Formats: sequence, structure tokens, C-alpha cells
Amino acid sequence: MRIVVLAGGIGGARFLRGLMSAAPDADITVIGNTGDDIHLFGLKVCPDLDTVMYTLGGGIHEEQGWGRADETFTVKEELAAYGVGPEWFGLGDRDFATHIVRTQMMGAGYPLSAVTEALCARWRPGVRLLPMTDDRVETHVLIDAPDGEGRKAVHFQEYWVRLRASVPAHAVVPVGADQAKPAPGVLEAIADADVVLFPPSNPVVSVGTILAVPGVREAIADAGVPVVGLSPIVGDAPVRGMADKVLAAVGVESTAAAVAKHYGSGLLDGWLVDTVDAGAVEEVEAAGIRCRAIPLMMADLKATTAMATEALALAEEVRG
Amino acid sequence: MRIVVLAGGIGGARFLRGLMSAAPDADITVIGNTGDDIHLFGLKVCPDLDTVMYTLGGGIHEEQGWGRADETFTVKEELAAYGVGPEWFGLGDRDFATHIVRTQMMGAGYPLSAVTEALCARWRPGVRLLPMTDDRVETHVLIDAPDGEGRKAVHFQEYWVRLRASVPAHAVVPVGADQAKPAPGVLEAIADADVVLFPPSNPVVSVGTILAVPGVREAIADAGVPVVGLSPIVGDAPVRGMADKVLAAVGVESTAAAVAKHYGSGLLDGWLVDTVDAGAVEEVEAAGIRCRAIPLMMADLKATTAMATEALALAEEVRG
Repeated sequence: MRIVVLAGGIGGARFLRGLMSAAPDADITVIGNTGDDIHLFGLKVCPDLDTVMYTLGGGIHEEQGWGRADETFTVKEELAAYGVGPEWFGLGDRDFATHIVRTQMMGAGYPLSAVTEALCARWRPGVRLLPMTDDRVETHVLIDAPDGEGRKAVHFQEYWVRLRASVPAHAVVPVGADQAKPAPGVLEAIADADVVLFPPSNPVVSVGTILAVPGVREAIADAGVPVVGLSPIVGDAPVRGMADKVLAAVGVESTAAAVAKHYGSGLLDGWLVDTVDAGAVEEVEAAGIRCRAIPLMMADLKATTAMATEALALAEEVRG
Repeated sequence: MRIVVLAGGIGGARFLRGLMSAAPDADITVIGNTGDDIHLFGLKVCPDLDTVMYTLGGGIHEEQGWGRADETFTVKEELAAYGVGPEWFGLGDRDFATHIVRTQMMGAGYPLSAVTEALCARWRPGVRLLPMTDDRVETHVLIDAPDGEGRKAVHFQEYWVRLRASVPAHAVVPVGADQAKPAPGVLEAIADADVVLFPPSNPVVSVGTILAVPGVREAIADAGVPVVGLSPIVGDAPVRGMADKVLAAVGVESTAAAVAKHYGSGLLDGWLVDTVDAGAVEEVEAAGIRCRAIPLMMADLKATTAMATEALALAEEVRG
């Protein structure tokens, strides 16, 4: 079975572990969000791709969910001693090496997709990891200007990490997405897929950004295979992260049903909500999307495997 | 008193400590060799400038003479795990931060001289540290090709660090030097100097490379002030390093007298040799260079201070 997964960072990576456990023989292609990529210290940093790579490759900091296990921060401390920041972004020494290799390869002319493949030769994540695009896309968030005069666009990482999404987001703009081309292999993987899954990743700044790359949404619709998602919202609140803040920016309520309808029945065939949101099943199905309520907390591999199994079962059900 | 010092790495840096102790009120400008600069992992590495900066700024690994104290090598180990080398060049985590800052600034358009000044704002070396040039100069060494067919040019660091100067050097070429311009401040510092000193640095790949930048040698000759050097050769062998290997490449014997005559009386007014080389004094003086034999081993700050004191005394003597 060929499965395509549109993944953000922590939520996507953890779901993928469950999926690989639920379908150990599946051929899985992960299309990773690159909208939260950022240039720091002259280096190209790809937080979501790395989170997937480290998680599936056994290098992740398990409790934190991002960054490397057994990490140290010597380089960052030294940079701070030079007065060079930002200090709010936690790049560890092990992580730095990844960004140094990536930046060096990109400087030599390799596209991000080739670089990602090279990095994965070390990590052997067990999936094919593709960036959504080799072009530069950068998610910006429109916030109130600090001086109270008008508005100001900040990089997603600045909004998410430095500001902890503590101020209202008026708009979320994947800058460059409209000009971006899907990376080599992306459209082909979708066309060849037997099922497409949306993990409980952020529907705006993760899955939404991938869908904003021209051709991706159309390819998924045209593939004619089941498209099943899992709600990142449980009991009207994000399972983790601050997805509610960016949902508000795009005018979507923080409910499991609202997110399903935001994707829409033109894209989504099936939707899994948590058992606490069982009341939403009827609303989602009324919108033309098959819906089931199951436990959606990725507490451990067993729970996550069960979620993936349910997603694949729902896909078969809608395939009919 | 305004002193200009042409410095390589370890020998130059240690001598400078003695000089600052011998002449605490002096205004010292160090013109640093950049011919052994190398691009590693996409980063601009300036070993000699950094050795001077770390040594005078209190960050040096004292026993080793280069690199940072309390250094760790996490980034390097991770790069190796990606299969990315070279492994023979010992870049530590603390050191990496310096190269990241430097590379980022240069990428933003700042010349090396401005970057060096910015880095020194942290280290406060107590001297004005100038790169010999802002242009790219790279010392290459001509060796026998590994397959025995003809010859091959390798970067100085590859010759020095990877090969440990274990194969014959047929030529030493400061590639780019003929097109290089002295960095801002270099010629002015020489013109304003009261004395110019050559520490016991490598006469070919350190001091020789600085002198190869068009205008530097002429400025020293034109300054009309005492120029005094200290022999890096003691008892027909280099005090440290492998200077004999590169001296052979330029057809100079590894003796204290031969190095003095290599600089020549047109450039050098005074020369200090070690007491074990007292027999060379007559030969050097016959070549028109005032010479004294004193202990030249930089065993500790006291010994190094005495060497610097003798160098300044010899300068006053030749000033007459």
C-alpha cells in the first residue's frame, strides 16, 4: 500500500511512528512543510523536516518532541557571547551540524529535496521524506505593530517561538507559496498513492501551507483515492501547540468539526475526531465527510498505532 | 611607542603576550597572516587571526596553543556521522561559533577586517588586530602527486595538518597574493610605526605571506624605522612546527643565519638568535644585519617578556 502523509512537525512525526507500526509494509511518502523554515546565523534551518527525520530516525529529544536527544548548547552560548542572536530559538550543537551540512549543500547548488535525501541517508527514517517544495516559502504572521500603529508581519517562528502566539494573529501568509513548485516526486507520489492522510498537524501553518503550494491540492483531489484526516483539536482546544491562535486568523473555529469543514468535502473524504467530540460526527457527516469518534491522544506508540489503524480503516470504508 | 608586529599563529601570539608585558603602554598593531585561511563546511576559518585573538583574549587552549579552552567537539562528531569532513581539521564547538559569526558577517558584505574588529569587540585582545588583506589569499603547497605522476598543489592546511608536512614541499605559493591589497589600516600602521617586529613565526608561510601582499614589504622598508626579527630556528631546527619543510621549498637552509639572510638587510635591521646559535652572529652581521644571541625559548611569560625586551632594545640600538 502506498500512503502519502502531509506532515508538519511534532504531531506529524509522532503520528508517522504510529502509522509505520500500523502498516509496517506500507510504502510511505511524507510531504513535509517547509513554510516554517528559517535562516538563522546564515544557516538554513528546516524545523518540520528535521523533526520528522529525527523522530523516525531515533535522534529526537523524546520529551521535548523537537531537537536532538542528549543535546548541548555550546555553539549557541558562544554566539550569544558575541552578541549574536536570536537567543529565543533553541539550536543545539548536534542540530547545528544538520544545518551546516544542509547550508553547505545548498550553497553548492543542491536543491532542498536532494539535501533532505542526503541527510536521510544517515537517519534512515523508513519513509521517503520530501519537502513540499524546493522553492523558498516562508510563513509570515500579521500582528499588531508593537508601537500600536498599524500591523507588522513577523516570521512564523518569531510568532510561535519568541512570542509564544501570545498576541492576536490577524493573518497567516505563506510568502512565496503562490510561486512555488512542488518538489520533485511530490505530485508523482500523490498520483500513485492508495491513500492520503492528514495527521493531527496544524491545519493552517502545517497542512495548510503544503496545500498552498500550487498543484498539491489539485493533485490530491485528482488522485481519486481516500483522503482521511485526524483532528488536531480535541474538546475545542489544540492537543498541543497553539493551533487555535492561527485558526482564528483564518476565521475558523477551534473545533474538530470546523477544521474538517475548513478542509472541505472537496478535499477530505474521512475525518477522525476524539471521543469527547463525538457530538461533532453528525455535523461533519452533514458536510459530506465520513466521520468517526475514537481516542485521539498520542500518549504512546500503542495509542498512536490505534489511531493510524482507524485512519486506514476509515479510508477503506470511504473507498467503498 | 607604536609597534607593528607581523604575526602568524601560535609563535606570533605567544610572542605578543611577552611584548605586551615588556611594553605595557605601547600601541601595538598586529598584521595577521590570512594565507592559511580555509573554507570548511561552508564556513570561513582564519586560524592565525583566531589564535592571536584567543591567546590575547584569554580564550586559548594553553597547552595546545590553538583552539579554545574547555572545547568540545559535538558538531564535528555529528558532521562525521553525516559523512561530512574533513575529519583531520579540529574544529571545536566554541570555535565553530566564531566561524559562524564571521561567515554570516562576510555573507552580509562586511570585509574580513571589519569582521575581525567585531570579533575582537568580544575578546579585547589589547592590540589592534588587522588581517594582512581583505582579499582572498590561500597558501598552496606543491607536493608529489600521490600516484607518482607529476605534482599536485594542496591547501597549506592539508599539507600542514593532514599530511603533517611529511612529504617534500617543492614550492609554496600564496595564491592570490599578487592581486591582494593590504587591508585598511595596514599601510598606515606601518607608516606610523616606531618599530616593526617579526616574531619567531614561520618565515615562509606566516611572515613571508604577509610580505607577499604588494605594498607591505615596501611600506616597511620606506618607514625608516628599526625592523627587528626573532629567529624561529634554534640549533638548526624549528622551535615548534615544521618550518624546515617549507624553508627547503624556498631554498633556504634551516639555520638562524639563513633565515635572517632570507629576509635580507634591505628589510631587516636586527636579528635575535638563540644562545646555542651564537656562532651565527658573525655571519648575520656580515650580511649587514645587527645580531644578538639571547635565550629564545618561549617557555613562559617571563622568558617571552625578556625576548621582547631584547628585541625592543636591539631596535633602539639600530636606531642609533
